[in-house]
Amino acid sequence: MAITRYQNLASILSQRIEQGLYPAGIRLPSIRVLSKEHGVSITTVQQAYRELEDQQLVEARPKSGYFVSPLKTRPELPAVCSMSQCSLSIPQWDQVLEMVGPLKDGEITFVSAAPDVSVSSLRPLTRALSHLSQRHDLRTLSYDDVRGSLELREQIARLLIDSGSHMDAGNIMITNGCREALSIAVRCVCAPGDIVAVESPSFHGSLQLLHGLGMKVLEIPTDPVNGISVEALELALDQWPVKAIMVTPTAHNPLGYNMPLERRQALLKLAQHYDVAIVEDDVYGELSFGYPRPATITSMDDEGRVLLCSSFSKTLAPGLRVGWIAPGSYMNRAVHMKYTGSGSTASLTQLAIVEFIKQGHYHKHVRRMRGQYQRNLAIMTGWITKYFPCGTRISRPQGGCLLWIELDHGIDTQRLNALLAEHNISIAVGAVFSTAGKFHSCMRINYAQPLTADIENAIRQIGVVIHQLLSRSGFGNSVK
Amino acid sequence: MAITRYQNLASILSQRIEQGLYPAGIRLPSIRVLSKEHGVSITTVQQAYRELEDQQLVEARPKSGYFVSPLKTRPELPAVCSMSQCSLSIPQWDQVLEMVGPLKDGEITFVSAAPDVSVSSLRPLTRALSHLSQRHDLRTLSYDDVRGSLELREQIARLLIDSGSHMDAGNIMITNGCREALSIAVRCVCAPGDIVAVESPSFHGSLQLLHGLGMKVLEIPTDPVNGISVEALELALDQWPVKAIMVTPTAHNPLGYNMPLERRQALLKLAQHYDVAIVEDDVYGELSFGYPRPATITSMDDEGRVLLCSSFSKTLAPGLRVGWIAPGSYMNRAVHMKYTGSGSTASLTQLAIVEFIKQGHYHKHVRRMRGQYQRNLAIMTGWITKYFPCGTRISRPQGGCLLWIELDHGIDTQRLNALLAEHNISIAVGAVFSTAGKFHSCMRINYAQPLTADIENAIRQIGVVIHQLLSRSGFGNSVK
Ligand SMILES: Cc1ncc(COP(=O)(O)O)c(C=O)c1O
Ligand SMILES: Cc1ncc(COP(=O)(O)O)c(C=O)c1O
Repeated sequence: MAITRYQNLASILSQRIEQGLYPAGIRLPSIRVLSKEHGVSITTVQQAYRELEDQQLVEARPKSGYFVSPLKTRPELPAVCSMSQCSLSIPQWDQVLEMVGPLKDGEITFVSAAPDVSVSSLRPLTRALSHLSQRHDLRTLSYDDVRGSLELREQIARLLIDSGSHMDAGNIMITNGCREALSIAVRCVCAPGDIVAVESPSFHGSLQLLHGLGMKVLEIPTDPVNGISVEALELALDQWPVKAIMVTPTAHNPLGYNMPLERRQALLKLAQHYDVAIVEDDVYGELSFGYPRPATITSMDDEGRVLLCSSFSKTLAPGLRVGWIAPGSYMNRAVHMKYTGSGSTASLTQLAIVEFIKQGHYHKHVRRMRGQYQRNLAIMTGWITKYFPCGTRISRPQGGCLLWIELDHGIDTQRLNALLAEHNISIAVGAVFSTAGKFHSCMRINYAQPLTADIENAIRQIGVVIHQLLSRSGFGNSVK
Repeated sequence: MAITRYQNLASILSQRIEQGLYPAGIRLPSIRVLSKEHGVSITTVQQAYRELEDQQLVEARPKSGYFVSPLKTRPELPAVCSMSQCSLSIPQWDQVLEMVGPLKDGEITFVSAAPDVSVSSLRPLTRALSHLSQRHDLRTLSYDDVRGSLELREQIARLLIDSGSHMDAGNIMITNGCREALSIAVRCVCAPGDIVAVESPSFHGSLQLLHGLGMKVLEIPTDPVNGISVEALELALDQWPVKAIMVTPTAHNPLGYNMPLERRQALLKLAQHYDVAIVEDDVYGELSFGYPRPATITSMDDEGRVLLCSSFSKTLAPGLRVGWIAPGSYMNRAVHMKYTGSGSTASLTQLAIVEFIKQGHYHKHVRRMRGQYQRNLAIMTGWITKYFPCGTRISRPQGGCLLWIELDHGIDTQRLNALLAEHNISIAVGAVFSTAGKFHSCMRINYAQPLTADIENAIRQIGVVIHQLLSRSGFGNSVK
């Protein structure tokens, strides 16, 4: 395990150097500081620095410490491209693009973070859509208020009570899914070039978003059960002018943890102390298995410092593309961005969701899905334990429909996925959840869908290919 | 009229100084150059410079010309605001926000640029929406390809043949309305701080978009019949490092002109010569009255330099929020922005539009709307001629559903609108169509809706209030 620890740290440091967080010529943090920030031993930090010396990224100067080599400088932002078709130099984008493309025929995919939409408890929603359309309701065809349907915002304010927040419609704006909410939130509080601290691993959509907007991403060590390390975050805030912290404290994607309440409070206190904004992604909030669901960080904030982003994509259906932002004190900017970025949001789906909630279907449906996901989680964990090599590490989600799996470090899940393609199976590779080159032996799978025999066979098949890879590379029995 | 001309020019120049296009201390263009750029007399330019001297914005230096005063410097971008609710310092935003808010009860509004959606020829569309929902089609609930429905993109490629373009689905990406397309297009070709040349007047949404993204807007003199002045544009391209030209050559909002074919060609040639991108807003393209509709600038481009933006908001219904971008050589960047900015687009509305087109309703509907708008235009022009003071200037739209009206220059339409509120009537004030402080005596009205007696009465009422304003200010008979 020591080998992995120092390599991991080395890759984080080299990413920070490449992003310009540690510019050329600057003194790097002391071994003691890094050991504290990353919760690793002194020896591990020393090994990491030696690795970076080998890569000529850093230089040791006797009695002074380690310095960033003058050779490596911060890479430029992608240039505004001229006429020829230029590719994007954003890490992992090609891999992500492959993930979001159309399905192949007969493919069994564990890639997406989508919920199960085939359930009967969604019927009243499609019925509401159908009725509203049939009535030729002119509201569904016209430009809506740029902030979204007032009725829907009122209903969302009501739903948010469970998360500990007391808002009204005026605090909420409807968006095209959580993704538009996140994009608006980040631009409310950051300008290009700013530093944003994130959990590591993080949802690839958020990482891509930050890179696309020209932000520098600071990946903070994150515990698979308790979430982002507040200690490591504090050290980072001390070192850099971080502008925002972006977290998914409830049913995290991909790790599945619920951040404990005290840690949420500590995070907010830290943000207050360093005057940093928090972007809280609560898209899985209502899918937390426990009752009551954890209070959001937003609900603890009385300064408008936290921007809450969410959607009905995970609780109802992603194809609706209805999300929202509660941007705290940033509403003015948020409305301007919405107006200029996409205008008002489609009305039909908003009005149908209002019907669905008003008729009392919402809570029933979400309760049912929580149950289904919790049962599926137990079955899926069982299958993976059964079919994957022993030593495989598995997350313990407290909500949502995603499982994070760490394989023997000799295995590259990118390669695994290529082999699985021959069996018409696909997984989400770990590498896209970091831009620091981490998680190459990790994968994320979705367990939302009904767990049929076909699914079990696919999991078994994945296990077979992993075993083949291990025996081929002679790693077979070296698994910890 | 001379009075207005020089004031107009003075306001353009002062805006350019404030935007930093002419930085402090720099020599301003000669009187001859300005006279040529703006098509005004030498005397007019001299008067404009004198006006700016009075405002202490410029200084005359004997034998050398005019210079930007050191006092006035380029205003900073809006700061990333800290925790307290900060207002946006973007010109006209408050006025625009008022326009896009919800309707008041019983209000007769001419404000929006929306089409008539109450017509029976849209019934098959709402029927398709209803059927798709009823079937509980899982595609309507799931994440779609981030580029949008393949079928819809194929249909759009087919529709684009009328505009002279031969594309396939791979050249097209679906967006949340034309607005998202425009936002993506601008970010494909510009970085914050870049200069974008636009028509003057321009759609307020585009102006707000450019300001929100931190671009500098260069308003180019625009002829109400032939469109943007290619001569003035050439002088501007010669003077500044313009990155993009944003135009609506067909059924322009608000002026209604169709730019003649030769002018489109000249514009493209200019863009090629100065290596500048063109963002072509074709949202009213299919509502051009004449047959066949004018060829887009996009169709003349073989380098991927023109980014075409459009939507079904004007031809079908804005509430659908389905638009598209054909980003030429910038597809990679465009897809990344879409993925991170809002994710995939809602599928239900896309699939319903596919049905509507496939069943042959699209062309029938659009033909019908063109006829309705052309008839309405004649009636509305008649009413305005009848009820408004003589001397009122009226545009001659060649498509779309918008009329641009220039009143006596003593009238501020912002004030007019305030008075009209007492009668529950509202218009779009001219000021929001410029960020250079122009068009204060102009207004835009929508003539899409069925022209009932109530509408006629509202137009008559507007005429009455204008007459009152004129007689109060003693301007009554000074109208040219
Ligand atoms: C953590 C997280 N945030 C946001 C999103 C995007 O949600 P939406 O589909 O509503 O844009 C996802 C979807 O995968 C997610 O996992
Ligand atoms: C010229 C122009 N472009 C774009 C738009 C926005 O279109 P959409 O509603 O499809 O976003 C409008 C709407 O008013 C417009 O007039």
